[in-house]
Amino acid sequence: MSAVAPAVEAVVDAAGAHIRGLMAALEQRLAELAAGHGEVLAGHAGDTIAAGGKRLRPLVVFVAAGDHGDDGQGLVRAAAAVELVHSATLVHDDVLDAADLRRGRSTVVASAGRAMATATGDLLFSRAFAELALNRRRDEVRALSAASTALAGGELLQRADAFDPEVTVERYLRRCELKTAALFEAACRLGALEGRADGARVRELAAFGRGIGLAFQVLDDVLDVSGPPERTGKRRGADLLDGTVTLPLILARQRSDDVARLDLREIAAADRAEAVCDAIEATGALEDARRLALEVVAEARATLPPLPAAQLQALQLIADGVVDRYA
Amino acid sequence: MSAVAPAVEAVVDAAGAHIRGLMAALEQRLAELAAGHGEVLAGHAGDTIAAGGKRLRPLVVFVAAGDHGDDGQGLVRAAAAVELVHSATLVHDDVLDAADLRRGRSTVVASAGRAMATATGDLLFSRAFAELALNRRRDEVRALSAASTALAGGELLQRADAFDPEVTVERYLRRCELKTAALFEAACRLGALEGRADGARVRELAAFGRGIGLAFQVLDDVLDVSGPPERTGKRRGADLLDGTVTLPLILARQRSDDVARLDLREIAAADRAEAVCDAIEATGALEDARRLALEVVAEARATLPPLPAAQLQALQLIADGVVDRYA
Repeated sequence: MSAVAPAVEAVVDAAGAHIRGLMAALEQRLAELAAGHGEVLAGHAGDTIAAGGKRLRPLVVFVAAGDHGDDGQGLVRAAAAVELVHSATLVHDDVLDAADLRRGRSTVVASAGRAMATATGDLLFSRAFAELALNRRRDEVRALSAASTALAGGELLQRADAFDPEVTVERYLRRCELKTAALFEAACRLGALEGRADGARVRELAAFGRGIGLAFQVLDDVLDVSGPPERTGKRRGADLLDGTVTLPLILARQRSDDVARLDLREIAAADRAEAVCDAIEATGALEDARRLALEVVAEARATLPPLPAAQLQALQLIADGVVDRYA
Repeated sequence: MSAVAPAVEAVVDAAGAHIRGLMAALEQRLAELAAGHGEVLAGHAGDTIAAGGKRLRPLVVFVAAGDHGDDGQGLVRAAAAVELVHSATLVHDDVLDAADLRRGRSTVVASAGRAMATATGDLLFSRAFAELALNRRRDEVRALSAASTALAGGELLQRADAFDPEVTVERYLRRCELKTAALFEAACRLGALEGRADGARVRELAAFGRGIGLAFQVLDDVLDVSGPPERTGKRRGADLLDGTVTLPLILARQRSDDVARLDLREIAAADRAEAVCDAIEATGALEDARRLALEVVAEARATLPPLPAAQLQALQLIADGVVDRYA
């Protein structure tokens, strides 16, 4: 079981004592799910679930729900389902990237091969829906399936656009919405639904989730260029190396003929990512991309409806956290 | 859109005129889903859905439901969801097997690469649950997620046991239940639920589905050894080449020291599959495996509850079809 990360701790404090109980119940439920697969499955799926991460998306589910004084069983299931979908995506991403390490541990693909990792991801996907179905709410299943459809669509879009210098800002943002924002939106939506919010409130919280998710991805892409590696845990320009065209590159190409002339496949082939990161940075594209992300977050904050003070403060701290990128 | 296969036609005739309408509605719904993915997705996910196959599992859904004279919208969604999960599994299987052809067409992995194919499979999985969630029935979502969890579990088990000569009959049957029977069971269960069957009837139909699914897989594994290739569309011993230990091999090892002594990795490495198929066949293991499958089907038939004559006849024809392997 992973401990709650220090920066997440602030959100937990702000949101109220009930959140701590929910986070503990989530870990327990995930541990049960990890243990419950028997035989081979217990190994990889279990390890993946247990390996953790900061449980940011479950936290968003809990905070979006508010404090309703019930036992939160349905809420914990919703949070577990969101985390399972997130884990499934990571496992499949690692297969595609042939990644060796994730969260400091050997990836499933590295330790057990592509086949096991693909099936493990499928299993986690399926378990997510099985878990959520226990809540007996069609609107929740619909929200999660919309998000997981979006995730797969985002992944497809990213692979389709790989090494394509003509990717527009609009298309990039669309990809971020599919790849990242949709699951944050679903996290808020599921929390709001379990928290018995009315239709308008559900939509407002969902929009907040979408905004912070979008900003999260844009800032992630900025960090890929800016580094430093000791902060991000990976080398600068990893996106350039696998041909993923992100906002910093798109903006830099608009600002600099030199960057616009770069052959994306040649950067990857010649392993010139670091130098190109410097060139992108020199155009001021990183500041502009960061500004766009901050505007999206500000907009998300502004659309938050009137809510109990503790809940509102916790949501604001989550937005801060996205900007500070603790997650 | 694929035409209904001739042998399936007999079931359609027996089950009643309403089935023909449902099969047409299914094709229309699948075509809508194929067209509805936009951009890149329309390509691969759409092609996969449209490419068809014999729609055996949707047919099972329809027949299990009986004839209730409603518009069958919920039933069509259930059938579409089952077919989408099946398609998702095939796409991922093709990735793992690096297969070039499926149903006479180029596979997604062959035409678009592993990344696209993995994401396409994920998308189809997600779309299945989105589709089924429209039915607003928690029991249906639970049935499908149980089946898709089982599918992934079966795949994991298969990969974990690859090249392992110590796989027991019990473990092999467990794998077949996960890999194949679970989705046939879900098809029957979903049909029964949409057909407003009571709890006992749902369980009886689900047991029938499980039985024919199990037999289906065992007979598939027999065909892999027996061929002939012109009937199966693939070379004999494909399972041996990828290390999948199936019932014919397990039984042959019990009956023949020569077979028991074979090194499974060496068979694959030296491409001696055809000769080993002959050796397995010579032990009589194929007859025994076939007999086991037929017993399972007989048991499934025997447990069928009293049902309207047309429905009962159609279910019997489906059982016949599994034995004759039209599917």
